[in-house]
Amino acid sequence: MNKPNHPFISISSDLGVESEEVAIMKAVALQINPDAIILDLRHSIPGFNIVEGAWTMEAVHLLPVGYHVCVVDPGVGTERRGVIIKTKRGDYLLGPDNGVLIPAAERFLGGIEKVVEIKNEKYMRKPVSPVFHGRDVFTPAAAWLSRGTPIEEFGPEIDHKKLVGAPYTEGDVMNKRVKAQVIHINRFGTIFINIKYDNFVKSGIKYGDRITVEVNKRKIKTKFLKTFGEVPIGEPLVIPDDFGRIEIAMNQDNFSEKYKVKLLDTVKIKKM
Amino acid sequence: MNKPNHPFISISSDLGVESEEVAIMKAVALQINPDAIILDLRHSIPGFNIVEGAWTMEAVHLLPVGYHVCVVDPGVGTERRGVIIKTKRGDYLLGPDNGVLIPAAERFLGGIEKVVEIKNEKYMRKPVSPVFHGRDVFTPAAAWLSRGTPIEEFGPEIDHKKLVGAPYTEGDVMNKRVKAQVIHINRFGTIFINIKYDNFVKSGIKYGDRITVEVNKRKIKTKFLKTFGEVPIGEPLVIPDDFGRIEIAMNQDNFSEKYKVKLLDTVKIKKM
Amino acid sequence: MNKPNHPFISISSDLGVESEEVAIMKAVALQINPDAIILDLRHSIPGFNIVEGAWTMEAVHLLPVGYHVCVVDPGVGTERRGVIIKTKRGDYLLGPDNGVLIPAAERFLGGIEKVVEIKNEKYMRKPVSPVFHGRDVFTPAAAWLSRGTPIEEFGPEIDHKKLVGAPYTEGDVMNKRVKAQVIHINRFGTIFINIKYDNFVKSGIKYGDRITVEVNKRKIKTKFLKTFGEVPIGEPLVIPDDFGRIEIAMNQDNFSEKYKVKLLDTVKIKKM
Repeated sequence: MNKPNHPFISISSDLGVESEEVAIMKAVALQINPDAIILDLRHSIPGFNIVEGAWTMEAVHLLPVGYHVCVVDPGVGTERRGVIIKTKRGDYLLGPDNGVLIPAAERFLGGIEKVVEIKNEKYMRKPVSPVFHGRDVFTPAAAWLSRGTPIEEFGPEIDHKKLVGAPYTEGDVMNKRVKAQVIHINRFGTIFINIKYDNFVKSGIKYGDRITVEVNKRKIKTKFLKTFGEVPIGEPLVIPDDFGRIEIAMNQDNFSEKYKVKLLDTVKIKKM
Repeated sequence: MNKPNHPFISISSDLGVESEEVAIMKAVALQINPDAIILDLRHSIPGFNIVEGAWTMEAVHLLPVGYHVCVVDPGVGTERRGVIIKTKRGDYLLGPDNGVLIPAAERFLGGIEKVVEIKNEKYMRKPVSPVFHGRDVFTPAAAWLSRGTPIEEFGPEIDHKKLVGAPYTEGDVMNKRVKAQVIHINRFGTIFINIKYDNFVKSGIKYGDRITVEVNKRKIKTKFLKTFGEVPIGEPLVIPDDFGRIEIAMNQDNFSEKYKVKLLDTVKIKKM
Repeated sequence: MNKPNHPFISISSDLGVESEEVAIMKAVALQINPDAIILDLRHSIPGFNIVEGAWTMEAVHLLPVGYHVCVVDPGVGTERRGVIIKTKRGDYLLGPDNGVLIPAAERFLGGIEKVVEIKNEKYMRKPVSPVFHGRDVFTPAAAWLSRGTPIEEFGPEIDHKKLVGAPYTEGDVMNKRVKAQVIHINRFGTIFINIKYDNFVKSGIKYGDRITVEVNKRKIKTKFLKTFGEVPIGEPLVIPDDFGRIEIAMNQDNFSEKYKVKLLDTVKIKKM
């Protein structure tokens, strides 16, 4: 996006790809800034699931620098705050102050530069629904920001240390082993863990090493590899994922189903 | 959309978000008017379901004034007519004459200004499929209209009183009670009823009032509230929806599943 | 698309409409060519299913001439090649050399004009994931082509006869009967077979003819018709599909479920 006239807005939510509310959010943004390029990042985040929401927002680092809205908001209508986080990469992340924006900002977008609470009603869609701030607060704010409205206009600055914390931290990397949590399961049943590739390699585990994956009291023998094709169909493997972390999969089969893995389950990987 | 050069087209259908037919409709529109902004409103309308189709089209009032196509068309290939309805708000609604466009036009877009039957083959994609008028009749007509082709060009005017009627009317609002029908169920199991917020308040039921919801011979005690957060998780509540009507939900739980509510079921709400 | 400044890119995959990977591919394309119009053709191709992938790509003939990416790639990470196929219609098809692009190119887009293996890393996103060539190889190549980069730049030419063959060929058309295979089943349970309409009529079967459909050892009496409305609800029928081939459906009911039809099952149609 080298076109200053075509700023980039992404929208993620737990509204479901089948929901018409997604279209309505995009229409709101287009009415404020018809020049914006608007992309649906993911709307299949499981309902109210802040872990999956936070995992999804990590992928913003693969999108152009822009204005990124996340609507996973179980506390909407309560006193929870709505915030804009400016990242050091230059993005603006918009959503509820429930931790959903933190892993992306801190681990993938260079860190938090500034946080503002969204308070200024001038930049909200009226009347503001008490249950759909995605449409009436966050998306309009993203669109106004994309037109050049300064972040300071939207409300008072917040000390970023006073934000609600991330729903998961970085897993533990030790000598020849790691202890992690499942932060995403995709439709193929592949599980994704909270260890960045760059950290994982600090364990000393190398491509080709034989390892055990321990999950749900099951110990699975496998290898740390580069790609699916290196094991027979139906066999498990541990590989770098495409988002900067580590995934555990089965070649053309469903790992999470076979081992009954759920979100936030603990996963231990150990060199044999 | 203040850009006359970028007219707004929305498309809704029962083709499913997974269908490639949606892309083909959009490609058809873009080939006629590459400047149009095309938005999918909803493609998850249950197959052939005119009630859900009509409910979906009501949301057009939340979109920019534009050209709005609806493809829920069980009678395609029979003698049913294809129509363009011009609304008083300035929109053009395009679809089959089966009632699917009526609630939106009459209750949310200011009423019907003019109706034309689509007859002029000049503005159809050839050959015209007998089973996919969404692609070959309605979407091309929307795109041509968006380029400035006058509505009169498409065919003869129809008296709007001779259109097939709406699949539901407005529910009954009485003193301290209403009698309504379910016209939409979303993926969270929340049910939406055929009473506009503006009508509902005429019942005298006010925020905070204790009420009963009667559905499927079950009587549920709850309150008329503003938002989910006002009840504990798992508790039911009645609130204004985000589309101008009233919804009945459970906070972070599934109302329609728990009470086995189906589309068009009768719902009675009464002040206690 | 008469606008040379707005080239047309379509993307199809088995990543699922719910996947954020689709957004990431589109973001990659937009970063290379912000002027491109990018359309999702279909992302609900069943995982690793080359038959459904090839069927999907056939629909490219209904899209504008452009740059069409297909990511159904069970062999990614192995020695399988990535290719660009230039068609006689003027399209560029991009994807793995596993047959998925062949039926579209040969039967719907005028034939193959030129094939190039994608080798030039200059036009890849770095680092190239071993498991996501859709993002790092095919989509970037489409975007660079759409900016005017000549096909020769991407790698060495390949003799198109040395490409991996199509996952299905054209069914057999005989006197008053045809023998075909199921190459797609849609969400309504309608089945689509590998016989082009133009070939089907060469059998001598005409609209209105009484026919039998034999599938899974069941013989179903029906007719070759033009549209659903010609039979009662729940009745089967054989009609031209909207993509240039023949489909077998039940009016407002599910044919594939009732007769337990699977992909690649044999279907015999015979005049009675």
